[in-house]
Amino acid sequence: MVRVLVLGLGLAGVTFTVGLERIKKGEIKPHGVPLANVNLGIKIDDIEVIGAVDVDARKVSSNAYKVAKELYGMKNVPETLKNIKIFAGLGSSRVKDLFPVHKEYGSVREELDAVYEIYKLLRPDVVIDVTTTQRGKVYRNWRKLEEDVFAGKAAPSQAYAYLALKYSAEVRPIAYVNLIPTPIANSPAIIEAAEKAGAVVLGDDGATGATPLTADILEHMRERNRRVYSIAQFNIGGNTDFLALTDEARNKAKELTKSSIVADILGYEPPHFIKPTGFLEPLGDKKFVAMHILFESFNGAVDEIIVNMRISDSPALAGYMVDLARLAKLALDKGLAGTIYQINAFYMKKPAPPGSKNMARILAYQNLLNFVEKLKTGTILEESIQYR
Amino acid sequence: MVRVLVLGLGLAGVTFTVGLERIKKGEIKPHGVPLANVNLGIKIDDIEVIGAVDVDARKVSSNAYKVAKELYGMKNVPETLKNIKIFAGLGSSRVKDLFPVHKEYGSVREELDAVYEIYKLLRPDVVIDVTTTQRGKVYRNWRKLEEDVFAGKAAPSQAYAYLALKYSAEVRPIAYVNLIPTPIANSPAIIEAAEKAGAVVLGDDGATGATPLTADILEHMRERNRRVYSIAQFNIGGNTDFLALTDEARNKAKELTKSSIVADILGYEPPHFIKPTGFLEPLGDKKFVAMHILFESFNGAVDEIIVNMRISDSPALAGYMVDLARLAKLALDKGLAGTIYQINAFYMKKPAPPGSKNMARILAYQNLLNFVEKLKTGTILEESIQYR
Amino acid sequence: MVRVLVLGLGLAGVTFTVGLERIKKGEIKPHGVPLANVNLGIKIDDIEVIGAVDVDARKVSSNAYKVAKELYGMKNVPETLKNIKIFAGLGSSRVKDLFPVHKEYGSVREELDAVYEIYKLLRPDVVIDVTTTQRGKVYRNWRKLEEDVFAGKAAPSQAYAYLALKYSAEVRPIAYVNLIPTPIANSPAIIEAAEKAGAVVLGDDGATGATPLTADILEHMRERNRRVYSIAQFNIGGNTDFLALTDEARNKAKELTKSSIVADILGYEPPHFIKPTGFLEPLGDKKFVAMHILFESFNGAVDEIIVNMRISDSPALAGYMVDLARLAKLALDKGLAGTIYQINAFYMKKPAPPGSKNMARILAYQNLLNFVEKLKTGTILEESIQYR
Amino acid sequence: MVRVLVLGLGLAGVTFTVGLERIKKGEIKPHGVPLANVNLGIKIDDIEVIGAVDVDARKVSSNAYKVAKELYGMKNVPETLKNIKIFAGLGSSRVKDLFPVHKEYGSVREELDAVYEIYKLLRPDVVIDVTTTQRGKVYRNWRKLEEDVFAGKAAPSQAYAYLALKYSAEVRPIAYVNLIPTPIANSPAIIEAAEKAGAVVLGDDGATGATPLTADILEHMRERNRRVYSIAQFNIGGNTDFLALTDEARNKAKELTKSSIVADILGYEPPHFIKPTGFLEPLGDKKFVAMHILFESFNGAVDEIIVNMRISDSPALAGYMVDLARLAKLALDKGLAGTIYQINAFYMKKPAPPGSKNMARILAYQNLLNFVEKLKTGTILEESIQYR
Repeated sequence: MVRVLVLGLGLAGVTFTVGLERIKKGEIKPHGVPLANVNLGIKIDDIEVIGAVDVDARKVSSNAYKVAKELYGMKNVPETLKNIKIFAGLGSSRVKDLFPVHKEYGSVREELDAVYEIYKLLRPDVVIDVTTTQRGKVYRNWRKLEEDVFAGKAAPSQAYAYLALKYSAEVRPIAYVNLIPTPIANSPAIIEAAEKAGAVVLGDDGATGATPLTADILEHMRERNRRVYSIAQFNIGGNTDFLALTDEARNKAKELTKSSIVADILGYEPPHFIKPTGFLEPLGDKKFVAMHILFESFNGAVDEIIVNMRISDSPALAGYMVDLARLAKLALDKGLAGTIYQINAFYMKKPAPPGSKNMARILAYQNLLNFVEKLKTGTILEESIQYR
Repeated sequence: MVRVLVLGLGLAGVTFTVGLERIKKGEIKPHGVPLANVNLGIKIDDIEVIGAVDVDARKVSSNAYKVAKELYGMKNVPETLKNIKIFAGLGSSRVKDLFPVHKEYGSVREELDAVYEIYKLLRPDVVIDVTTTQRGKVYRNWRKLEEDVFAGKAAPSQAYAYLALKYSAEVRPIAYVNLIPTPIANSPAIIEAAEKAGAVVLGDDGATGATPLTADILEHMRERNRRVYSIAQFNIGGNTDFLALTDEARNKAKELTKSSIVADILGYEPPHFIKPTGFLEPLGDKKFVAMHILFESFNGAVDEIIVNMRISDSPALAGYMVDLARLAKLALDKGLAGTIYQINAFYMKKPAPPGSKNMARILAYQNLLNFVEKLKTGTILEESIQYR
Repeated sequence: MVRVLVLGLGLAGVTFTVGLERIKKGEIKPHGVPLANVNLGIKIDDIEVIGAVDVDARKVSSNAYKVAKELYGMKNVPETLKNIKIFAGLGSSRVKDLFPVHKEYGSVREELDAVYEIYKLLRPDVVIDVTTTQRGKVYRNWRKLEEDVFAGKAAPSQAYAYLALKYSAEVRPIAYVNLIPTPIANSPAIIEAAEKAGAVVLGDDGATGATPLTADILEHMRERNRRVYSIAQFNIGGNTDFLALTDEARNKAKELTKSSIVADILGYEPPHFIKPTGFLEPLGDKKFVAMHILFESFNGAVDEIIVNMRISDSPALAGYMVDLARLAKLALDKGLAGTIYQINAFYMKKPAPPGSKNMARILAYQNLLNFVEKLKTGTILEESIQYR
Repeated sequence: MVRVLVLGLGLAGVTFTVGLERIKKGEIKPHGVPLANVNLGIKIDDIEVIGAVDVDARKVSSNAYKVAKELYGMKNVPETLKNIKIFAGLGSSRVKDLFPVHKEYGSVREELDAVYEIYKLLRPDVVIDVTTTQRGKVYRNWRKLEEDVFAGKAAPSQAYAYLALKYSAEVRPIAYVNLIPTPIANSPAIIEAAEKAGAVVLGDDGATGATPLTADILEHMRERNRRVYSIAQFNIGGNTDFLALTDEARNKAKELTKSSIVADILGYEPPHFIKPTGFLEPLGDKKFVAMHILFESFNGAVDEIIVNMRISDSPALAGYMVDLARLAKLALDKGLAGTIYQINAFYMKKPAPPGSKNMARILAYQNLLNFVEKLKTGTILEESIQYR
């Protein structure tokens, strides 16, 4: 069994829990789960969501069934979600533009203690972070991180990860999977601590939507030695993620992780404009993406490709969560520690360890299959995994 | 040096000769040549176009410079093209909708003899076939092929290939690269004869334009286990290739090679409509492609991708010719014979040997690089190459 | 009250009856009904569907509620649809690819008599034809039409129209609105008979989907004196209309009505490819349209516009039906007879009377508003209406 | 003859002068000139560019021929452009990110005097403003405008317009056509002064590119009573206009004029995102536009339209200039004064007089034709023109 704790019961978290239970009931097929047909040794049926954490007062002390039904108006919500309790999360006072939790905790220290108690109570194998995008800096020093966590200066996700590593060292090693842009797996201090504690940290920033398709199309260009003149990629959507990104600072962070694919894959950096562009509430979770690539082919011919997508953000991420819960558990079972590039390179926009390159997803997928095969048969050398 | 004979001096053939000479002069960079930056041991500078064959009376006995300048109105045509002579080709009487060659030959036999004389005169290493699309059947029996060739019943391209294999057996082994849909490399009789003669036959049907991108996008879908509901792909252009395809029978052939990628890559066959759709003269060589893919993601979400392209057909194919001339020569030099899936899988729509599957081009590219590396270092076993 | 008889209870007919009742109940707003906010003197609430005719054995003798719920799986179907009975229609033996009606009628004559009895029984004001696309020729001579109707050689829709005119002459004038491509309002024999009988005939071929938008975009081009080089318009869908159009002959008919807009609006005829392109069942009623327009602007600049649409065919047509039922009744009430270009020009792909031009829909809409205003205030001269 | 002075010899101004001379020579057809085939009484051949003004030191004291050839690399530049001299313009010290003019003028007063001298020297009939986008406020009071002009606080374009009105009052009435977003025709103080002086002021902000097409598509929606849920419109280009708009403040101004069409045409304001989105140098003058419209049709069906364009900005604007020069002269000849909504409504993004609505361009075009007809036949009442 894989015991999963979900941090942030937004649309992605809810879709994950609903979809997972529906697959387990045989109601739907595991479409959108990349490794659904690959034998990992751990089945989808083995995943159990044992709780969730959120900072929205309407969710805390409620259950996943009610949230899915009433807050998100979802249909076909399995009754089993009534068993998934929602606990009050960190930083409820610092998260703006959300319904604040009533004063449950008096201080940062109390908040941290409470979350640590949740870990001890629920005993997760894998903690998956799908909280809302937060700003956060890269930590190279464990002391500094600890200091900031206790001073309430670190991003909430970094505090969750800190506590997960503390729990790994003190109780038993667990995995932390970060699907938001905040630098967790890209903070050297966190990966080093994970290695020491035997914990696994995967991240950062789940690569759904336009980014992985862009990566594969750019690789397609590179392999034909076409010279890319410019790339424009617009994204607009109506979920809270896009609302949050209208905050200029957060958008900036996003832009950086998205743009790094261009130079990483092409080997040069043509002018490009790649970033979430705006918020339009009626689009809901199904964003609109428009992409334009201008390029030179043989003998000076100038051609162009335009891609338009209507793509549902949350289900795409939720499908990845089904794989990542299992891969993280598999890695723990096989004794791996730290972060794992072979997994991150396929699922993440900013694959850890820090300094790693983005690569075409079609290639990352092949590497992932090879890695899984070796991991299962025990022919992998630990040191070879962690840094590219 | 790689001595290349071009069969069919249409827009693709002309663009190849012009672009190649411009690259050799340092006037342009080798954009659109997939392996331009890969060391094959044979340089682009080593390629020499030593002649061309055509059935258009306006071209025969002229030279490539005049054809490029006057018939195709191209700019920046290097003077060196004046040295490339154009000889009268096979089947001039059977090719409709083209300017017929004045009665130069009295019979099929005389035509065949004349072409064989051209081979002997020019001594090509590689013959590249970019003639116009012709109907032709698959030949499983060498005698039957020979009979049809002499009766004037085989497709002209099959007769050219027959003569190339005869030349390979009688004089010295050469390579035949078929970039049109007519089954050459997919005719078992031809491949077997090539194996015996030590010749190399690559084909069929150059995969430029929408097909390879579709292959890579479908692989992208498959790797996320997204369920593809339907695929629509429209193509419309204004070059002679599109004009020819308004002939219903030729279009049928095209449709088959284009559609095979769906089942080969996805592993199942959703309803799809993939074929050249029409002819619009003002679009010229730069066709318009529209593609729509409807698919299911996690938890029943239904999403869609739309791709629109304006893409120049001939330069894309011409860029491939620069690679294929070198790869064919390299294979000959290393003693390979028959056809080579690892090359065909990347460059061809209907990769030989017969019965082979289409695969995502990004994967085919990796295989190609591995193959080239092994071929150069001599670690390849001949039998391992030819059938998948 | 406007008593409406619907011929053909396919998806368009069903959507019309369901949507109409929901609007009357206040459950939805009249979106998609062009003149919903224009005072016609006749309200949407005044429309009453008093029956339907079909040739599908599963529908005949059932009711609109069951058909909507069970055959089309629609939600929110008002109970009032249980009152709409479905009668056996003409030509059940001649309609292929549909479930044939059990032998209810022994001969063409009996079929015709039975339908005439339905008219007498239900006493419609307006008969709306949304049967499946049928081939049919233009009739210039009433005797010839009558002969073909009784010989079972006229298209079913032409026989329905014939009977409606007979009913108009013998009982009281009614209106016939033809929304399919079969030439009804474009048959001079039919319009002349309508004029004599005081009946109104509107048609042909409802202009939903891509055609009216193309018309407006071409007008946009024309008004800027941009020179259109070429137009490509692809349509693909999964409803029975697209299935029927895979029949080459029907498609040909469609292509003609669609293409006439180009010359009518631009004043010249650039190369164009405009026709339903294929059938893809998973697209259902929501077709995919791709359009490409290449044009020249000032000082030789060559630009292009690409339009992609996902658009629901049946609701678009159903919304028009709400207007046409009211406009037809208004015309009857005001004593008009024959056909009316001002109405046809906005709603139809092939606006009658025969020989009329297509025009930009934005202009047709203005003319329609003026016409309605004059009709209401009685300042219209009958003869001025019918021919442009 | 229409004597035209061009303010700002950027790409639009240069394209206008080049294209105009080529049309006059019979070298090209007047594509992209909306009223090319409408008899205005003034022919395209009657237009004479008698000079230009710019602030770029590389252009000042040069001529239009050199600028077109050397700075913009244009081909087919008629020799007659050598006669078009370029004079130093206003505000050279205040225009950033451009090559500053060497200190030709010591003070604002000297600059103003110099420009007034240019007017007196060249005696233009029509001054057309295609300078770069500048911030500027709306002026309601003539004294305040005058004060700001002399203090160097008004936008350069407002000072040019001020001087044109002064010239109109003191010498003879001329016309000022403003094609940039700065409020000229939307400043009540300027229009009132024009009325007094017998001058004509047209503006503001030439409506080329995506805006007029969006206007027509929205009208198309409105006329079908489709409920628009959301509109996203992205623009990205590589000319100096887009570069300037990366300046946040200028972009803000642009966004306002672009968005006003939504409520003006639909009658309600759905969520929308319409603004120049970014700068990509390789796109040059041919911008990429992507538009997405989500809407509800009949019976709750939700459909969508996606438009992608590659469109050359400067030629589109240059084509309008050919009309506006003639229309402005015609209005002067007929004794009109102030601004003219019927002209502005078709050509401008922010049609004056202030408070006027945007309308569908197809309708504005009809109004324009009617207006021109009345103007030519003298049946127009002056007061009826100026305010809607």
